Amino acid sequence: MRTHFCGLVDEALIGQTVTLCGWTDVARNLGGVCFIDLRDHEGIVQVTVEPDAAEVYAVAEQLGYEDVLQVEGVVRARHSVNDKIRTGKVEVIASRITVLNKAAPLPFHAHENPGEDIRLQYRYLDLRTPDMQRKQRTRIKLVQALRRWLDGRGFQDIETPILTKATPEGARDFLVPARMHPGEFYALPQSPQLFKQILMVAGFDRYYQIARCFRDEALRADRQLEFTQLDMEFAFVEERDVQDTVEAMIRDIFKEVVDVDLAAQFPRMTWAEAMRRFGSDKPDLRIDLELQDVAELVKGSEFKVFSDWAEHPEGRIAALRVPAGAAFSRKQIDDYAAHAAKYGAKGLAYIKIGDDGAVNSPIAKFFSEDAFAALIKAIGLQNGDLVFFGAGKYNVVSDFMGALRLKVGKDTGRVAAGWAPLWVTDFPMFEWDEDAQRYVALHHPFTAPAVDDIADLRANAKTAVSRGYDMVLNGNEIGGGSIRIHRPDMQSTVFELLGIGAEEAEAKFGFLLDALKYGAPPHGGIAFGIDRIAALMAGTDSIRDVIPFPKTTSAQCLMTGAPSPIADEQLAEVHIQVRPRK
Amino acid sequence: MRTHFCGLVDEALIGQTVTLCGWTDVARNLGGVCFIDLRDHEGIVQVTVEPDAAEVYAVAEQLGYEDVLQVEGVVRARHSVNDKIRTGKVEVIASRITVLNKAAPLPFHAHENPGEDIRLQYRYLDLRTPDMQRKQRTRIKLVQALRRWLDGRGFQDIETPILTKATPEGARDFLVPARMHPGEFYALPQSPQLFKQILMVAGFDRYYQIARCFRDEALRADRQLEFTQLDMEFAFVEERDVQDTVEAMIRDIFKEVVDVDLAAQFPRMTWAEAMRRFGSDKPDLRIDLELQDVAELVKGSEFKVFSDWAEHPEGRIAALRVPAGAAFSRKQIDDYAAHAAKYGAKGLAYIKIGDDGAVNSPIAKFFSEDAFAALIKAIGLQNGDLVFFGAGKYNVVSDFMGALRLKVGKDTGRVAAGWAPLWVTDFPMFEWDEDAQRYVALHHPFTAPAVDDIADLRANAKTAVSRGYDMVLNGNEIGGGSIRIHRPDMQSTVFELLGIGAEEAEAKFGFLLDALKYGAPPHGGIAFGIDRIAALMAGTDSIRDVIPFPKTTSAQCLMTGAPSPIADEQLAEVHIQVRPRK
Repeated sequence: MRTHFCGLVDEALIGQTVTLCGWTDVARNLGGVCFIDLRDHEGIVQVTVEPDAAEVYAVAEQLGYEDVLQVEGVVRARHSVNDKIRTGKVEVIASRITVLNKAAPLPFHAHENPGEDIRLQYRYLDLRTPDMQRKQRTRIKLVQALRRWLDGRGFQDIETPILTKATPEGARDFLVPARMHPGEFYALPQSPQLFKQILMVAGFDRYYQIARCFRDEALRADRQLEFTQLDMEFAFVEERDVQDTVEAMIRDIFKEVVDVDLAAQFPRMTWAEAMRRFGSDKPDLRIDLELQDVAELVKGSEFKVFSDWAEHPEGRIAALRVPAGAAFSRKQIDDYAAHAAKYGAKGLAYIKIGDDGAVNSPIAKFFSEDAFAALIKAIGLQNGDLVFFGAGKYNVVSDFMGALRLKVGKDTGRVAAGWAPLWVTDFPMFEWDEDAQRYVALHHPFTAPAVDDIADLRANAKTAVSRGYDMVLNGNEIGGGSIRIHRPDMQSTVFELLGIGAEEAEAKFGFLLDALKYGAPPHGGIAFGIDRIAALMAGTDSIRDVIPFPKTTSAQCLMTGAPSPIADEQLAEVHIQVRPRK
Repeated sequence: MRTHFCGLVDEALIGQTVTLCGWTDVARNLGGVCFIDLRDHEGIVQVTVEPDAAEVYAVAEQLGYEDVLQVEGVVRARHSVNDKIRTGKVEVIASRITVLNKAAPLPFHAHENPGEDIRLQYRYLDLRTPDMQRKQRTRIKLVQALRRWLDGRGFQDIETPILTKATPEGARDFLVPARMHPGEFYALPQSPQLFKQILMVAGFDRYYQIARCFRDEALRADRQLEFTQLDMEFAFVEERDVQDTVEAMIRDIFKEVVDVDLAAQFPRMTWAEAMRRFGSDKPDLRIDLELQDVAELVKGSEFKVFSDWAEHPEGRIAALRVPAGAAFSRKQIDDYAAHAAKYGAKGLAYIKIGDDGAVNSPIAKFFSEDAFAALIKAIGLQNGDLVFFGAGKYNVVSDFMGALRLKVGKDTGRVAAGWAPLWVTDFPMFEWDEDAQRYVALHHPFTAPAVDDIADLRANAKTAVSRGYDMVLNGNEIGGGSIRIHRPDMQSTVFELLGIGAEEAEAKFGFLLDALKYGAPPHGGIAFGIDRIAALMAGTDSIRDVIPFPKTTSAQCLMTGAPSPIADEQLAEVHIQVRPRK
């Protein structure tokens, strides 16, 4: 139907007759001559229709936005060159225009932003815009580059099932009623975790998959019901084998896709250090603010919140110095306190030192002059600075002070340009869940502990460190992985410590325990969030921009109208019914 | 953990110390020396432990099948060379053996075939066998080659949703209850059909996806609940653009993956010709038997079945000549009749001509001598031959005579070696469904009719031909596609002819009709069955052999135990309950 792509017509074709297909980006009549910007996926070319071509001219005069055309014409050098586009030196003098499909008046135009709901409803129109085309192509290029990298290094792309077994451990499963087994259900995988471990047991050695995963969780701005991860697993490896390989991969891919040079060696940081310095297990190292622990310095103060938490075995008192922060207004400080409160802060103490050295602080009065001076000195507070203090349980303080650090850093323009990747390692093996009164796994129940000795793990479960690791980029956890447990006795022990009894373990994970029994190699792996990496590469905050057909935060597809009610007869076929509302 | 792969140790390494990891394929003590066949994904190498290495020897003596080892040793030239394996000229003299994971006694051994159920339950052991490794790798290689081919030609790999809208047209959907929308459901896609059409409307031009698809249908030997297709769509194309591109792709891929040269040009056949000559829309051209229409020749006979159907406007009387078929026993003929009956035959007439020319036929008596001779002559029946006759409705006769042709062809060794691809084209647009008293789409409701004129399509719906096409290989439909409808008025008309009222069309497919309205390019595409192509390439009849974790014909995963019962509280969260049994 066409001889060339619109966006690729150039001077080499001058004098030739071409047939083009595309959309009417805009059609206008200037001084009796019709000009059509004809657009396809490669770009735009100018089609010119002169009035002496009467039949063609009559067609051109009737064109509207987004009409789909087939145009035949001769390529000619253009009088007024447009340097902004590849085809800007030429035009096509139309000898024939066929309207392949007339477009109805559009609900909105490319240059408008009618709001995300309308954009999602008419996703096909939104995706036509150059900005969305660019974002989608960044994702396409990313996935292509990853595959080529992995294929070239002996990784095998292997499919794992979408209809699989429910594993109530972890996030909430999506359920699929089984027609052939009344009262039974498949579940959609939260990740191919167990299958990829099984593949290592099966001798596949190096596995990858660009895998669709599903979590029925509350949707936040950066979450989707279904998401895509680059899932990888390696047999016969230790941490550094996995880390060095995928670090090189990420570096190569950023260079290839967006021409970014990431650090030749990613910094490494233990979880404990990341929490201490940045109040986060995914610190954004582009921001040069750090937390400081000041419990020792404030434990003698009269301020009860400080003195109490300073003595508490699980307490933390952290300070965040904000250079030039003395300029913050009362309102700004209140807003920061409100922000910290969202992350668990009960209050936010501060000290301001004016440019003239004048102290402004609700807590100054609780300190002796010496102690106050020592505190100021230790924190390194200069004239014109401000410092925020958080006190409370260690993890709570870390969370809200970490969130505060991010917000202050962004608000005060302290986010350096560029890219800051790092490895976070040595995660705690378990977290104590107060509500459930049991341990939960910080990574997942298949993560190996750093110790090999079962008795040691049992004795020191509370402080045990795992062989998990995360790759962090600009404050986003873009990849998470671990060395897995490969011995059935260790796996059973970890299940037990997680409060999963032998019977329950057998029912849920019996096949894994079996597989570990029959010759499982040491193995480990990692999974990268494709949606997030694509968003970072495309320079957008929203992963919805790099997912072709995303769902809203209320879990709907505004284009197709999913989810939707289903006739009761159809539900009967799969042996379920809608539950009466209470 | 290792310096080399077991299967790649060769003479170049003689004298060097290597560290290997792998499985104990077999360990045996011959004349006081321990020999271990150490296996990894690349192959096997012989590890030798001499008694003077007392500590290592003690370990080696205790090894059992599938123990996972790390072995350090020096590579040495081997006395007795084994030419069958790549490592056959060397052995590794072990200086250290570490048992990384001891294997329990296995439920079965690689050389045994304990039956498919056991193999599926212990899939990880089954996948370790060289035969299964080879089959899985054929699939991996196929997918890799397809992607490389498509990436190199401007096709864009784009993801479409797995949680989408139910479309009751077509096969039965898998349903997923929506937690955030009580009483509503997502459905898993039967194919990305509508999304890929939408992508063309969105301007993506050339799309592909290795897409997981889902159909909740009765499982036959060659069906799975979830299956994988190479899904493709092209904007601004006609049939031959699609066909020529993908024909070249399939040819290149067969050459690359299995070194097979497919025909330089695939034969093309209309649906009508395929049904007439082979009784099938996916004829296996490797079999040199063909059907012949004999209604004209038998309409004067006294055999009422023949004379009735010969006059019937929808009747067919087809003959299948079987060279040397006179040797069939009465029992064999009965078996063939039973086989044809499974496909709808009410009976199967035949004529045998002995080597001596003697006629043996239950129907001979119904013919005049002249008519009988004319029939024999027209069919080309020789001494020693047999001919089967089928009479009835056109499609029914075609079906069972086509099935008979396949069976006779296979039983009598008339399946030529090699590969027989072809295109089948010009499918009927609609089939009349007697039960529902309405038309159903032979491809799907989005397939364009050959005529552009709506009035013409309405007037001649019964005989209308579609722009659909199938690629057939050795009797398997490996790909099916069509030019799609791109005009909203034509799409509405086809919905109407299929008995989908305006309101229903709007509710189910409103977003498609909208998309066609706002500038949809002419477009078309195709989808290839990856599981089937991989099975053909791997030389297996069962697609289960090329799916890493398949389900049984009763829709179960014997390894994980999916599907499984779910606690009622969990069902309550998604607002459903199991229906009481009646």
